[in-house]
Amino acid sequence: MSVKNMDDLPLEPLSVGAKTSKQVLISDQEGPNFAMRRFVIEAGGFMPMHTNTVEHEQFCIGGKAKVIIGDEKVIVQKNNVVFIPANVPHCYKTIGDEAFEFLCLIPNQEDIIEIVDDPE
Amino acid sequence: MSVKNMDDLPLEPLSVGAKTSKQVLISDQEGPNFAMRRFVIEAGGFMPMHTNTVEHEQFCIGGKAKVIIGDEKVIVQKNNVVFIPANVPHCYKTIGDEAFEFLCLIPNQEDIIEIVDDPE
Repeated sequence: MSVKNMDDLPLEPLSVGAKTSKQVLISDQEGPNFAMRRFVIEAGGFMPMHTNTVEHEQFCIGGKAKVIIGDEKVIVQKNNVVFIPANVPHCYKTIGDEAFEFLCLIPNQEDIIEIVDDPE
Repeated sequence: MSVKNMDDLPLEPLSVGAKTSKQVLISDQEGPNFAMRRFVIEAGGFMPMHTNTVEHEQFCIGGKAKVIIGDEKVIVQKNNVVFIPANVPHCYKTIGDEAFEFLCLIPNQEDIIEIVDDPE
């Protein structure tokens, strides 16, 4: 089956941050080179400052968040495109009363995730 | 700059099919492993049956289209996830009066595109 409806796929709560969940849209078993996931951070939630050993290519499909990427502090919202290089610390904190939702694609490589100190 | 607004990026008309255009969101120079593009097919437009030598990972962000992928005929609409393996013929034809818009990610590998006969 080549086509899936996002809403039919399991959205799994995460144990990091608050009000965070993750949905695998195209797994590393399905895609030969990279995987497509969707992350949802409910209003009032956050993902703590962390690093990954792989880069992220992200596309925001809804909501708004304050995002820190290395030395940059930015507001990310619907239709924004985000590139986070490997090993650059980043974190997310929602703004407003909508869930912050984004696609996040990563290469099929080992991803070591490390929580780091938040500068704030 | 890690964040871009989709609407600030150039949307280039394509010479294949009808009413088709392409926007590079994260180029193969920016992403070390794969590139993120957005395709728009205006209402009444189509992309003819073709093959690529790389796989596609797609996410529909708006509109509706009849899509053929190999032997499958499917309707694709907002929040649908589509995986098209390398070398499998596929085509798109919009349905309704909205533009069909989708993200399409491909690995940073040579992509040879070949137009093939449409079965219809």
